[in-house]
Amino acid sequence: MSELEQRGVPEETRTEIMEATFRAVSEHGYAGLRMRDIGEEMEKTRQIIHYHYDGKYDLLANFLEYIIEQYEGSVEVERDVPPCEELDIRIRQCLFGPGFEEFDHWERMKVYHELFTHAQNDERHREIFDEHHRRLRDSITQVVAEGIERGDFRDTDPERTAQLITDVIHAARERKLSLGHDDAPEEAVQAIDEFVVDSLIVDE
Amino acid sequence: MSELEQRGVPEETRTEIMEATFRAVSEHGYAGLRMRDIGEEMEKTRQIIHYHYDGKYDLLANFLEYIIEQYEGSVEVERDVPPCEELDIRIRQCLFGPGFEEFDHWERMKVYHELFTHAQNDERHREIFDEHHRRLRDSITQVVAEGIERGDFRDTDPERTAQLITDVIHAARERKLSLGHDDAPEEAVQAIDEFVVDSLIVDE
Repeated sequence: MSELEQRGVPEETRTEIMEATFRAVSEHGYAGLRMRDIGEEMEKTRQIIHYHYDGKYDLLANFLEYIIEQYEGSVEVERDVPPCEELDIRIRQCLFGPGFEEFDHWERMKVYHELFTHAQNDERHREIFDEHHRRLRDSITQVVAEGIERGDFRDTDPERTAQLITDVIHAARERKLSLGHDDAPEEAVQAIDEFVVDSLIVDE
Repeated sequence: MSELEQRGVPEETRTEIMEATFRAVSEHGYAGLRMRDIGEEMEKTRQIIHYHYDGKYDLLANFLEYIIEQYEGSVEVERDVPPCEELDIRIRQCLFGPGFEEFDHWERMKVYHELFTHAQNDERHREIFDEHHRRLRDSITQVVAEGIERGDFRDTDPERTAQLITDVIHAARERKLSLGHDDAPEEAVQAIDEFVVDSLIVDE
């Protein structure tokens, strides 16, 4: 159970507040955001935000957990998929995202990366991101380790390999967002294939 | 001649304003920065800023060019260094930086990465970063291409290789800054060595 569920914020209310925050951050940016901007994106009265969250800082830390949950919850890989294929599925999901109804992947990623940079100055955000980053990397480490165990992949350090893949995914998303390189995610898939996956695969 | 030199801002004045801006952004962050904060970091009167720069936005775009110039100007590689070694020198300079007197590499990188994320919302910053990114990547592309031509490296797409290296450098810096992963730059060097450089080198 997440911190938010423990708080007893009803699911529907939480989703409404969080989606309103998304729209507000998307429109006004993170740094200049006011509680009022979030309230203006809601149908219900904004008093409900103050009832559940202890100010802007508390709301935004919870908002960050919400974004991360959405992504982590969305990655599904069927059982018994070979490691090589699972690696590709996970990489593509990180890069191209699952489908969302209201906001698309890149609108969400824009907010995610803005908050990521702000974590430079914010210990709580840093901890939340770091945990998420570890889970993401570990999920890839596991796939690589399984591949090595099965003899599909050569013997290497699974964590270093997973870290490299995670770094390339992160950088490609940033390039698309900050520099407008729309091909960056596809380039990342190709580069990971050529330099990482191909080097892992043991020739029969 | 850069845009700034053409403007006729005396070198010494420019440096003073730019270093004051560095300290101010470092202290107050980019988003909430006021011209007054920069003025407070200067010994001379802050009227001099208004004399040379057309407001905060103009100053910050020029400031971004200043940061980039410092890095680009600092990368020096001797002639006749073999491509394999030059690659290593360039990667390490990007990751560990040249020495600066007042602010160290990571204080500068913190500001650089904060501005990089803000480029999501700023066309002029985006152009400046994109040009810098292209120059950086091209300098690595050239080394890889030279290595292929000399027969030191296997035949591959030099640009894709350079893009991958540039992405890994960028992500490692972000991890150190945003997540506090102090080992990230060293891990990046090792990962690039294992997966990129080793795969490039043609066995004798």
